[in-house]
Amino acid sequence: MTNFLERLKSPGDLKCLSLGELKQLAAEIRERIVETVSRNGGHLASSLGVVELTIALHRVLETPRDQIVWDVGHQAYAHKLLTGRLDRFDTLRRLNGISGFPRRSESPYDSFGAGHASTSISAALGMAAARDTMGGSEKVVAVIGDGSLTGGLAFEGLNQAGALKKDLIVVLNDNEMSISPNVGALASFLSRKMTSERFVRFRTGTKLLLGRIPRFGPGLLGIVQRAEGSLKGFLTPGKLFEAFGFEYVGPLDGHSLEDLIETLENVKRLKGPVLLHVLTKKGKGYPFAEESPALFHGVGPFDRATGMVKPSRERADTYTTVFGNTLVEMAEKDERIVAITAAMTDGTGLTEFARRFPGRFYDVGIAEQHAVTFAAGLSCRGLRPVVAIYSTFLQRAYDNILSDVCLQNLPIAFALDRGGLVGEDGPTHHGAFDLSFLRPMPNLAFMVPRNEEELRRAMVTAISHDGPFMFRYPRARSEGLPLNGTPEPVPIGRGETLRGGVDGVIFAVGSMIREALAAAERLEMEGIRLGVVDPRFVKPLDRELLVGAARRAALVVTVEENVLQGGFGSAVMELLEEEGLMARMLRIGLPDRYIEHGSRSELHAACGLDADGIARRIRKVVGADTPVACTPRARFTRG
Amino acid sequence: MTNFLERLKSPGDLKCLSLGELKQLAAEIRERIVETVSRNGGHLASSLGVVELTIALHRVLETPRDQIVWDVGHQAYAHKLLTGRLDRFDTLRRLNGISGFPRRSESPYDSFGAGHASTSISAALGMAAARDTMGGSEKVVAVIGDGSLTGGLAFEGLNQAGALKKDLIVVLNDNEMSISPNVGALASFLSRKMTSERFVRFRTGTKLLLGRIPRFGPGLLGIVQRAEGSLKGFLTPGKLFEAFGFEYVGPLDGHSLEDLIETLENVKRLKGPVLLHVLTKKGKGYPFAEESPALFHGVGPFDRATGMVKPSRERADTYTTVFGNTLVEMAEKDERIVAITAAMTDGTGLTEFARRFPGRFYDVGIAEQHAVTFAAGLSCRGLRPVVAIYSTFLQRAYDNILSDVCLQNLPIAFALDRGGLVGEDGPTHHGAFDLSFLRPMPNLAFMVPRNEEELRRAMVTAISHDGPFMFRYPRARSEGLPLNGTPEPVPIGRGETLRGGVDGVIFAVGSMIREALAAAERLEMEGIRLGVVDPRFVKPLDRELLVGAARRAALVVTVEENVLQGGFGSAVMELLEEEGLMARMLRIGLPDRYIEHGSRSELHAACGLDADGIARRIRKVVGADTPVACTPRARFTRG
Repeated sequence: MTNFLERLKSPGDLKCLSLGELKQLAAEIRERIVETVSRNGGHLASSLGVVELTIALHRVLETPRDQIVWDVGHQAYAHKLLTGRLDRFDTLRRLNGISGFPRRSESPYDSFGAGHASTSISAALGMAAARDTMGGSEKVVAVIGDGSLTGGLAFEGLNQAGALKKDLIVVLNDNEMSISPNVGALASFLSRKMTSERFVRFRTGTKLLLGRIPRFGPGLLGIVQRAEGSLKGFLTPGKLFEAFGFEYVGPLDGHSLEDLIETLENVKRLKGPVLLHVLTKKGKGYPFAEESPALFHGVGPFDRATGMVKPSRERADTYTTVFGNTLVEMAEKDERIVAITAAMTDGTGLTEFARRFPGRFYDVGIAEQHAVTFAAGLSCRGLRPVVAIYSTFLQRAYDNILSDVCLQNLPIAFALDRGGLVGEDGPTHHGAFDLSFLRPMPNLAFMVPRNEEELRRAMVTAISHDGPFMFRYPRARSEGLPLNGTPEPVPIGRGETLRGGVDGVIFAVGSMIREALAAAERLEMEGIRLGVVDPRFVKPLDRELLVGAARRAALVVTVEENVLQGGFGSAVMELLEEEGLMARMLRIGLPDRYIEHGSRSELHAACGLDADGIARRIRKVVGADTPVACTPRARFTRG
Repeated sequence: MTNFLERLKSPGDLKCLSLGELKQLAAEIRERIVETVSRNGGHLASSLGVVELTIALHRVLETPRDQIVWDVGHQAYAHKLLTGRLDRFDTLRRLNGISGFPRRSESPYDSFGAGHASTSISAALGMAAARDTMGGSEKVVAVIGDGSLTGGLAFEGLNQAGALKKDLIVVLNDNEMSISPNVGALASFLSRKMTSERFVRFRTGTKLLLGRIPRFGPGLLGIVQRAEGSLKGFLTPGKLFEAFGFEYVGPLDGHSLEDLIETLENVKRLKGPVLLHVLTKKGKGYPFAEESPALFHGVGPFDRATGMVKPSRERADTYTTVFGNTLVEMAEKDERIVAITAAMTDGTGLTEFARRFPGRFYDVGIAEQHAVTFAAGLSCRGLRPVVAIYSTFLQRAYDNILSDVCLQNLPIAFALDRGGLVGEDGPTHHGAFDLSFLRPMPNLAFMVPRNEEELRRAMVTAISHDGPFMFRYPRARSEGLPLNGTPEPVPIGRGETLRGGVDGVIFAVGSMIREALAAAERLEMEGIRLGVVDPRFVKPLDRELLVGAARRAALVVTVEENVLQGGFGSAVMELLEEEGLMARMLRIGLPDRYIEHGSRSELHAACGLDADGIARRIRKVVGADTPVACTPRARFTRG
């Protein structure tokens, strides 16, 4: 039997296939996606949901001349298979393999890189504006899910798009489900109207919808207008998007290639901003994913036949699980605790909390800015909000943390999940910048627990602290420590010496403590005796402990899973400068570039952030021309 | 004649005044606001526009038990006058005086601090949720302008508010004008509907509107519903907000105390989220401000009688003006240049650019995230966008710069106006963090010009650079240099030695160069000879120049108008650490706290960021126990 996927040279070849052949192609694409993701892990459900839409877009448009902008980008696997990456598709998300997201550096078909939600309309509008400035004629299409529409950025884009009146197609990929079940008034509005009996009339066929397209003439248009008239008193999604200046077409069946192709052929001739509303099913074509779209959103390797996710060989809980369990324990005893997440209930370990305390749990959708300012409001009135957001997504709320929370010194606990390198999701998902962007914020306390017991202690400390408090933990299994009883709070800014040593001292934070201890052990066998100190807090630093240790040390090494620019190592140098100390310094951390995808351990090794790499760096400095023990240091007073 | 403002002990006393007395009070408040702002400068037009609304809110609500959350907060002068700050009102925006914005630390009536736009709905919703968790009964009211509604954060708040169904009143203060004339589809939608003949029926009186309020019974409600029916085919603002799950009331005349009080009395009894649409006029009651609301938005001291803004005694242009003029010159020669701002056309000096190149100018409204990602889209297709945003507002777009621009290494020029301390607008407006939050971003070039000629050179360098390029300049008059001809580009990362000296070297950036030179001159008279180097770039640093100078220096001083945490001084220490150099360091910059309001020069002096302060700090270090010239330094190789 012909394999159409193998035979495609470029998406242009799609124009030569019959509808039946395109359907077979869709099946082949699904087969390849399920097969690869079952081995490599990845974003399965979203990509399966848009196979027909992807085929239809590439069939109707002239890519790469025409521009397709995928929002978030985790749904772009079919797009990758159709645009020259079939032979490398088995390297998906692997070190040196292709990315799980569109990347401009990877293919001319990837018009805009993605990873974070809600950017597509803004980027596509920019492309459309550039086209008109330069006199081009290419089509620009943004494909955005209903979940991403919750983000304020998408609204900002819609708002300007409707005003600028550029030719722009926004495909709303409505699967009634963002990463978590969708939330917010808009989502319930969309789904309510979708199932309303009166509105169903619009869904009976694509033909009727085409009445909205001018070339079909006023006759059919009249029918549609009369049908709309019968909806008086109801606001339809169409009316809503029309309020934003968009022509609305839809909703249509996102798994009907025939409807999609016919409608897109017509839509691409329309002028001005058009919103094409497409209904799809997450996980379409793989029954296990259709049944459990949240589980198969971002999934590790699984057994194709059974849909069972392969169990990890490690038995310890993840930090995420420890966080979730501990928060439930704490909330039982302290009624002031409320939890907030941004479309990541399961990812941040809050599922059980949500079940147990529904009235104290808020999933605000993909809306990190709102999550933080909403928490500020809760905090003003005496509650103790815990905001659990991945480090990389908290970047969206930089100003809210600085201007709404820290400026007002509000007691809010921030749980930064996925701090440091996250692995296969790559540069848009690494939590590589948080120490640097948060550390300059006044009034903030920022703890980086080195193991799960310290995480639990961070949590009770956070809740008892009368100001903003961050704690950051990695996307990783914990150490497997026994966790009993109630954790003890930690004094703010108090660190701990974990190991003594006369030749120098390592200050390491969080995930890097284990590696630093292992490096110190190795070096001891070579006669280099290093102490290891866990400052626990990157802000405020334990001045007495760190300055004392630095004074006694011939070499001060800092290790962090964060960029070196403005990070923990810089904080230590700032402290020593304030104290008028000149210490021989060696800072180890992430370099000044974006880190690609790969497994966490591969990336750590590549960045020298494992025991081997740390020992190697230290060995090189210690073995240099100036003997460590003889390094002279000066001390002077400061104004 | 009775002065009601002087006699008010608390807002509760408003309940005892007659309508006529309240009107007189409104006049007294306007008088006081105009009088004070004409001397101190401030946000005049917004505050004049909400005098009646403020009186009505405090009359109907029980403040401070009930919570009023002012969006942006620049309209809160009447609120301050009514809530115990009359006797200090003449200190408005002055050092140690009252703030120009609500501050929780200033008054229990200031429920939530503000300064940046679009936060009020989120914060108020948090307060409403906290109330319901704790069983309280207080009312929560957010007051938000139509301009602030453009910000995605406001949409995120509306979206969750509509879903949560908490009792919450959102007052939409619709003056059809944000700071710049309002932009975006929503704004044109609101104003279009407002003036549509069919819709005007809703505006004929408050009585009809009250039909929407349940206690008036089904009879009146039926009339309203029939009136609505006649609007089929038109989407009203009411329908729009209803789509978000809000009960809509309005629009009503925001200068009719009678209507406001009566409607608020009814609205406060409604359940669930209510949007009260109020129409106001910016600058109301002061004819010059009514005529030129943009000019009197944020204004310096002016002559009350003539409305003329008092001319500055300094004759030099501001940096903003130099930027705007230069961009027009550049755009004439380079068609790829397009300019983007976020509701700050005039504030960023782009008025003339907008006039000359309307097709290449984009004011996206209060939507900084979109501004940046929109620019990314423009850049992807070959244009050279220049994004001009105040430093403090660019904080909103942190993730967009990191994930959309720098990750893709897109050529975009960012003009960071108001870098450093801005003066009277205080902590929410200082550009105190930009060096720290931007410096860790890979691929970024970041120049801090020391004078207007260097600013012009930064601009031509930015446009010719093939990647993201920031330049930052202060809210200040320039040096008054003659500006002729076409500026020369600067090699990326190339600094300049401005002054030689054998006892040490000062590395200063931007606005601090002048102060550093003055400090060095003073110290020379005392026998301390310091060199001064302008690295020009905080990223990439001029490695050769700085390392060479540091090697020769017994003391390295850094000076910056930015927080010391992760700033320029830390960048210098990072560089020296990478080179294995131990230098005696002294970092001078902003401390780890929020800086209050006051004039720029007062604040500089208070922070030690003037020539005096810099000289004092250096003198203290040089005069310390270890003689500077004898400080031993070590050098070692690095792995």
